[in-house]
Amino acid sequence: MAATGKPRSLAAWNDGTVKSQLLDFVARVTEQGGPDFVPPAERIATFDNDGTLWCEQPLFAQAFFLMDRARELAEKDPTLKERQPFQALLEQDFKTLLGLGKQGLLELVFATHSGMRQEEFDPIARNWLAKTRHPRFGRLFEECTYQPQLELLDFLRRNSFKTYIVTGGGIDFVRACSEQVYGIPREQVIGSSEKLRFEVNEGQGGLMKLAELNSFDDRDVKPQNIALHIGRRPILAFGNSDGDLAMLRYTKTGTGPRLALLLRHDDAEREVAYDSEFRLSPLSEGLEKANEYGITVVSMKRDWNVIF
Amino acid sequence: MAATGKPRSLAAWNDGTVKSQLLDFVARVTEQGGPDFVPPAERIATFDNDGTLWCEQPLFAQAFFLMDRARELAEKDPTLKERQPFQALLEQDFKTLLGLGKQGLLELVFATHSGMRQEEFDPIARNWLAKTRHPRFGRLFEECTYQPQLELLDFLRRNSFKTYIVTGGGIDFVRACSEQVYGIPREQVIGSSEKLRFEVNEGQGGLMKLAELNSFDDRDVKPQNIALHIGRRPILAFGNSDGDLAMLRYTKTGTGPRLALLLRHDDAEREVAYDSEFRLSPLSEGLEKANEYGITVVSMKRDWNVIF
Repeated sequence: MAATGKPRSLAAWNDGTVKSQLLDFVARVTEQGGPDFVPPAERIATFDNDGTLWCEQPLFAQAFFLMDRARELAEKDPTLKERQPFQALLEQDFKTLLGLGKQGLLELVFATHSGMRQEEFDPIARNWLAKTRHPRFGRLFEECTYQPQLELLDFLRRNSFKTYIVTGGGIDFVRACSEQVYGIPREQVIGSSEKLRFEVNEGQGGLMKLAELNSFDDRDVKPQNIALHIGRRPILAFGNSDGDLAMLRYTKTGTGPRLALLLRHDDAEREVAYDSEFRLSPLSEGLEKANEYGITVVSMKRDWNVIF
Repeated sequence: MAATGKPRSLAAWNDGTVKSQLLDFVARVTEQGGPDFVPPAERIATFDNDGTLWCEQPLFAQAFFLMDRARELAEKDPTLKERQPFQALLEQDFKTLLGLGKQGLLELVFATHSGMRQEEFDPIARNWLAKTRHPRFGRLFEECTYQPQLELLDFLRRNSFKTYIVTGGGIDFVRACSEQVYGIPREQVIGSSEKLRFEVNEGQGGLMKLAELNSFDDRDVKPQNIALHIGRRPILAFGNSDGDLAMLRYTKTGTGPRLALLLRHDDAEREVAYDSEFRLSPLSEGLEKANEYGITVVSMKRDWNVIF
């Protein structure tokens, strides 16, 4: 619901160099006849999702979705309770789960939701997102979005940007809520995906979800998938981990005006403070080389006056 | 230039059952409060390109582009003149070339344009399309588009459809002209693609085109790629060969109002008459089973009063 409703400004952003850079960038690329003008069709902005648009701690939302799926499967087959990685999922053993890595967890999602048609998955994910609460924040997962980012997405669109999500998360999972939560239509979501098989049963054609990974949309694969889906180099990109660096550098090193931003989670009081520990995609190269790469570091603590 | 300029109706379509079906379908899905109303976001229309939106005889445009590329390469390395498949390309030996199949020809395109960055390819393709003439029709390749289809694309967009190209042709090649020729932005082109590699040279990030095939967007791969790129089932699809049947059946067998169309090239006088012979993607199952599949066959001769 967050994406619709009352008009927004960048009110949740504190005044300072980051907010000034954002406002200045948008003013320059939209100034008709100005030296940095970018035609609307080229105003592509790409955002990572987990940890950039919404909370990814203690684990990204889709991992909790997977835990619930494991519970359902274990009711049908109790032997799963003693088999890894199901045991770790059922016991919310975060340490073991983090050890699987984001790709490992995603492959489990794909495996546990294979054998159904793509359109059957959509209401399952949508329903889960609309009724499941985050264990720490107590709010619905789909409400764990960052208010400053919703404002930024809206601000960019009001300036004729086309906003995309480019996520390591499962493409179908994020599409199930992107329109409602972020105002981003399904076709503007790029993400990790499993292979699909076209089949016709009793005259009805459809796409069967397979257990096999098609694309793990992380690191270098992000710009590759941007090129495949969009065919244009973004002029603005926003991430929060080293997994987003290739996208940020692809964006930043094109010709003309460019802005690449990296969100730093440094607010233990209002959210979580973490750079490299306890996360699936660490942020270390990004912080070390932000200056060299021309990337703007956004501090949650300093730059945002509201989180959710 | 065809996509911009004067407003269009379906004037190039002859009155008859096909035109009535088109008008009726669009009227039904856009009728607010009507039983068949489809919200604008779901009004997805997908069109094959070669043989559906523009001419594909005696070979699709990209094959001629490849011939010119082979000529350039042979100037640098004359030994290519005696090596297949370059010899066939240089001698315009259509029989041998048809024998390679569409995928084989595409792989050759990808191989002969690999080792450059994606953004370098764009002006090469754009320039070729804007200056090269079709051997039979004498007009620029980018003007070998079908006037009735340009009108239909425009008509659909004026009714809040989002129009996509879903082509077996190379995605970068078609994107080089889609905006100008069809009014379809680059991100609404889905097609065959080669693998890309992200690299940073002297601080500049970019995508290198590799010789390896990533996706051959034909037959069952068309609905798979539609699901990957769009994440919605189209409500209207238009093709011209058995290579489009999976897309047409995927479209037609969703719930709610649906329209699937198949263009038959039966006009030897104004264009070319061919069903199964002399083409890379034959049309045989499509014609045999059109009734069973609920597909509307469009006759170029009967239904179009203008071709180009």
